[in-house]
Formats: sequence, C-alpha cells, structure tokens
Amino acid sequence: MINTRWGLAQKSSRPSWRTALLFSLSVVVSGCAAVKPAEADKPALYVYSTIDALLSGAYDGELTVKQLVSKGDFGLGTYNRLDGEMLVLGGVPYHFKADGSVTVAKPDDRIPLAYVLPFKPTHRFTLAGSPAAMSLTDIEAAIDARLPNKNLFYAVDVTGQFTGITTRAIAAQVRPYRPLAELVKTQVLFPRASATGTMVGIRSPAFSKGVSVPGWHWHFISDDRSYGGHVLAIGLVNAVANITPSHKVELDLPGNEDFANSDQTRDRSAELHQVEKQQK
Amino acid sequence: MINTRWGLAQKSSRPSWRTALLFSLSVVVSGCAAVKPAEADKPALYVYSTIDALLSGAYDGELTVKQLVSKGDFGLGTYNRLDGEMLVLGGVPYHFKADGSVTVAKPDDRIPLAYVLPFKPTHRFTLAGSPAAMSLTDIEAAIDARLPNKNLFYAVDVTGQFTGITTRAIAAQVRPYRPLAELVKTQVLFPRASATGTMVGIRSPAFSKGVSVPGWHWHFISDDRSYGGHVLAIGLVNAVANITPSHKVELDLPGNEDFANSDQTRDRSAELHQVEKQQK
Repeated sequence: MINTRWGLAQKSSRPSWRTALLFSLSVVVSGCAAVKPAEADKPALYVYSTIDALLSGAYDGELTVKQLVSKGDFGLGTYNRLDGEMLVLGGVPYHFKADGSVTVAKPDDRIPLAYVLPFKPTHRFTLAGSPAAMSLTDIEAAIDARLPNKNLFYAVDVTGQFTGITTRAIAAQVRPYRPLAELVKTQVLFPRASATGTMVGIRSPAFSKGVSVPGWHWHFISDDRSYGGHVLAIGLVNAVANITPSHKVELDLPGNEDFANSDQTRDRSAELHQVEKQQK
Repeated sequence: MINTRWGLAQKSSRPSWRTALLFSLSVVVSGCAAVKPAEADKPALYVYSTIDALLSGAYDGELTVKQLVSKGDFGLGTYNRLDGEMLVLGGVPYHFKADGSVTVAKPDDRIPLAYVLPFKPTHRFTLAGSPAAMSLTDIEAAIDARLPNKNLFYAVDVTGQFTGITTRAIAAQVRPYRPLAELVKTQVLFPRASATGTMVGIRSPAFSKGVSVPGWHWHFISDDRSYGGHVLAIGLVNAVANITPSHKVELDLPGNEDFANSDQTRDRSAELHQVEKQQK
C-alpha cells in the first residue's frame, strides 16, 4: 500500500527476467530493498527559480546558501554569476569552480537555481558493472526500472567506485550575461580515470519541463572532497544507491528584474540538451 | 521596492498613452492602485495534480474539498469523475454541474485537479467597456498590461456587470475514462445574455506548461450563485478587478495509480487549447 503510494515497485531479492534481459550478463543488479517507507516521510523538493530562467541568462538569485540548506540537505544547483556547480550532500553545500577547486560555500553566498530536499531514502539497492562498467545510460536505466511511477520526482545518491569520469564546470560570468547554451562552449572539463565518491541525482517528470531538467540530472563528488562537478560521463564499477521519492514540490520564484524579464516563452529543450549532456 | 518585487508596475491614476493606444477610445481603463503590498503577504499557489494528468484522463484524485480549502480561499478546478467545474470564492467551494445546477461542494467530495491560494490582493483597478463590452481577449490584455512580470502566477477576481456570457460544464464520467480532448465534444454550454457576478482567474507563466494552463484560465459565478462554470466567452460592461501575485507554488502530486500511469510525456498544447478555449 505504502509502496504503491510511493510508486516504487516491490521486487524480489533476485534479478527479474526483465532486468536480466535489459542489462544482459554484463551487469549484476541486486533487488530493491525497502528501507524506511513510512507514510509520514514525504519530503518536498524545494526548487528555487526555473531551468528556463537559467537557460535564458538569469544567473543571479537572491536566495542564500543558508536559506537553501534549511530547505534540504541533498541536491544540486549553481551559484550566482553561474560560478561553477553546486552539490549538497549531508547538508554540506559544495562548490566546484572552473579552476578545478572544491570548497564549501559560505552561508551568505547566493544562488540563481537549485533543487534540494530532505534526503529520506525509502529504497536501497546495489549496482555493479561486470566485466565492463555501467555507463551513465545503464545507471539511469537500472534505476528507472525500479520506478514505475515516472510522474514523481526522485532524489538518488549512488556511492561507490567509479571509472572514466568527466565532470564540467563553467566559469563565473560578467554582465551582460549571455544565454547558457552559448556559455557551455566555454565549459571546463575534468576527466578522471577513477574515483570513489557519490553521484547526487535528481529525476524530474516530463511535465516539469521549463521548471526542472526532465529525466536525470547528476553531479558528482569524490570521497576525499577534492574532485567533482556536473556529470557528463561516468562508469560505475560497483555502488549502493538510495532513492528518496517526492510527490511534493515547493517552487520559489526570484523577485528580481532578471527573472521578471527573462524570456521563458520559448521551447528550450534543444538548448537544455546541449547544456546538460554534451561535451562541447 | 516592494512593487518591483511583486513585479507589478506602479501606474498613475490616469490612463497611460500606451494603455490608451491599446484600447483606443472604446474602453475606459482606470489606473492601478496598490491596496496592500506588504512584503509579508506572499501567498503560495497550491496546485493539486497537473493539467497534463487531467488531459490524459486522470479524473480521480485523493484530495478532499476540506483539505483544498485549507490551502486557499480562492481558485478553480474540477471534481472527481470530471464532474463539472469548481470555483472557490471567499472560501466557498462551488460546484457547477452539466445539468446547470450550482451547489456548494461537500467537505469530503474529492478533487482530481485544482489551483487555489489565499486571496490577498495587492492591486485593484476598474475596467469598463464603452460603448461595446470588453471581450475576454480585451479583459486579459487590460490586466496583462499591468503585469510586466509574466513569470509569476497571478490570481484575479473581476466583479461587476457582464454580457454575452458562455460557460460550459462536462458531465461526470464513468470508467474507462477517455482523454479530455475527446470528452470536451460532449460539453454542455450555458449561454446567458447578461449577469452580475465574479470572474475567478488564474494566470500561469509559460514555464508552468504541463502543470498549469499557461496564460489565463477563468471560471465565473453569478452574484445570486445560480449560474456559472468554465468561461468560454464573456463581455465586460464594467467591473472592479483585484490582483494577487504569487511567486510561490506548492505542487502536490496524487499518489494513486491513475496519476502514476498517466502519459505526461506528450506535448498536449493543442489538446489544451481545444479543451480550454473552444466552443466545440
């Protein structure tokens, strides 16, 4: 009952034939164990601004890091002036800059766009690539196979051993701001052969297009907190994943002129794909 | 400052040249007076389910009327089984059925889709059509002219004397449910030569497509509470309008199978236009 409500399929502890078919013999996917499916745990995804505002060049928000982490201890976003990438894990707001540095953001740093929630996972499972690592597409498909309800939001952490990672960050901008699809050509790539660490992902339903990134959006941070950013490519060797479903969203729109004047009437799907997925 | 934050233009008490140009001499539009622009008044628009779920045929929700009105005293929506139209005004949930009846919904009636907020208007102005009544398009343009920030949500009531009204309601459905664009062909029209009453409108920004109806969405109720429904056409003779801006949204997604299984990946813009605007 609770399980149905969350839209998470109860699965046996052995791979189903469908899963086996999907991932062939190259990937071992264990079952999906319910961790804490209490009815009361219904974390709201807090969303500040919209992806379409960011795509149009609204790179300055009023929200502070302190305010953001009061809304959730887990998530992702960016910083004012489009200064690199944000990842929030265990309540700590990390800041990946285009110079490759990883720092903890200050409480009064400001944010143009972010997605966070109180991470209260209801399901946990292991993922493993053998003999070849699971690609990002494989990882997303393996998690999607456990989410029959694609019309909710999900936050997922995937912690373990990874290979063939490419992250990116974009340098802080100066006004007048250009649209994000232009700036992404200047993104700095950070390839790494292997790392242990955590992927922080938000999955948004198709109807939230315009507000969020439909499908998966991943940032990464290494265990030693020295490496990370927006994930463009990654290989999973073995890892544990935790899923937090959310069927509540709290959307908070900036009150500034940039947001008011941003053109959010265009279909920016193509720009979004270019910005989120492509390595230049 | 506060005014900028709400994105409402401060206007003089006389029509601007731009307004005069827009509406020529046929319409007298008075200035926009700030009523209660306190910073603390930031009503959140509560949204239950999504317009794309309704378009796809998810006509049963779990939310009760009692729960809905606890979230806001003003708004619109429909009832389970797509049984007619909902309008909430002054905290009273009205129910327009396809037999033309107008009743007050019961607290335990259930809702598949609704948009409500605590109505706390910040701006008030008069609208008048002379010699010809203002059309729905005129009314929307006159209000839009006062909203330079099209990227917020707005709730508006327009109370006064109207002419040439056509409302509609759709009859309660039985399973298996067909998509809304098919059912709208069975809508019942309620034309009326004139009425005094209130238009209840929600304006949603373009980026909320999929969740809400981009642009304006109007329901109507007569002063004597005997007539109303979803507005397809209306003429405004003279009326007073109040605007409540909202830059916060609380989205609540149904936990049932209908919502989980609804196909919300398609672009339903054309269906939406057919459903919301057309008289068959």
